[in-house]
Amino acid sequence: MSNNSLVQNALNWRYAVKKFDAHRKISAADWTTLKESLRLSPSSYGLQPWKFIVVENNDLRKQLKEVSWNQSQVTDCSHYVVLTYREKVDAEFIQTNMAKIAQVRGVNLDELKGFEKAITGDLIHGPRAKVIETWAQRQVYIAMGFLLETAALLGIDSTPMEGLDPAAYDTLLGLNNSGWKTVAAVALGYRHAEDPFQNNKKVRFDEAEIFEVK
Amino acid sequence: MSNNSLVQNALNWRYAVKKFDAHRKISAADWTTLKESLRLSPSSYGLQPWKFIVVENNDLRKQLKEVSWNQSQVTDCSHYVVLTYREKVDAEFIQTNMAKIAQVRGVNLDELKGFEKAITGDLIHGPRAKVIETWAQRQVYIAMGFLLETAALLGIDSTPMEGLDPAAYDTLLGLNNSGWKTVAAVALGYRHAEDPFQNNKKVRFDEAEIFEVK
Repeated sequence: MSNNSLVQNALNWRYAVKKFDAHRKISAADWTTLKESLRLSPSSYGLQPWKFIVVENNDLRKQLKEVSWNQSQVTDCSHYVVLTYREKVDAEFIQTNMAKIAQVRGVNLDELKGFEKAITGDLIHGPRAKVIETWAQRQVYIAMGFLLETAALLGIDSTPMEGLDPAAYDTLLGLNNSGWKTVAAVALGYRHAEDPFQNNKKVRFDEAEIFEVK
Repeated sequence: MSNNSLVQNALNWRYAVKKFDAHRKISAADWTTLKESLRLSPSSYGLQPWKFIVVENNDLRKQLKEVSWNQSQVTDCSHYVVLTYREKVDAEFIQTNMAKIAQVRGVNLDELKGFEKAITGDLIHGPRAKVIETWAQRQVYIAMGFLLETAALLGIDSTPMEGLDPAAYDTLLGLNNSGWKTVAAVALGYRHAEDPFQNNKKVRFDEAEIFEVK
């Protein structure tokens, strides 16, 4: 099968699961690829303004469910990942990034001063400073896209979750004053044989309705 | 090759191209899959608050380049896609969506009244109304993720572009008062053999730095 068919089949197969099979777990090999998809996601300037919280504790999952419109996916899925973003992109965070570049590429921090200055000028002192939370959230959504597409390619079901109370999540996850804030979550696992939503025809606008050529 | 290796190899292979090979074009089959990846992307409530503008006109590309920090990707890539979001999610847009569901699934519009009311209550009259532009932008970024991951899987290079003047794009693309606004763009095609950035080691935080288990 060509990669064209592979991708198209996977994306047509996926849907937002309403009822997971609570007994089926994602394998270690697949979970590694899912985590790598988040980790390798691109972001503006490569800053990676994200942290991913994997909730394994069942009591915590039950509490999160209560502030997630009581949706069963929170407790029934195999892996529940809360996506958080960097609340404030400050000099410290940018320096952490520069240190990482220096470490990975074996370059001197001094050589990165120009790049650091460009980022600082844009995100801390520039026009984007005013919308920095929005900016960071958007980067996290690229990672969400990577996670969801990879899941589909591996035959793993998923549900992107926006129907949740981010402030309540922050409290339950101990994120207050951590610099990280909840923006969404993704439930991963396997659809229950009885989830009726899997039989719904996928609804999307036609190509002509959403594409324009200029 | 298992899909695990396929995905991991593709995501490690991709990088943000700085210099495209202006002579190589994406094939029709690959372009279809790229468009399908955008079209099939998930979004909150399935509302698809996006429109994708494919810029083929060379003069227009030159003008866009001037308001994109003069980055050569705009003119040298094979396919240049501007991602726009729905500025205002209003009753009309929600009804367009309901009509689409009714058409695709062959159900009566009346059966969708409850769903429509839930969406309206959340996005038009609820707390999310205040952040509706941010909400719509985030959905578009899921689609950006799908586009970028699919490109990598097909061996197609890409550059996500945030370094652009959205207001100038709106004017050049004739979007003013259209209900759609530019948020970002993606350049797609093939890396130039001489793009030095392809030799840089990919910089990402380690798994332990961005994942937390609770």
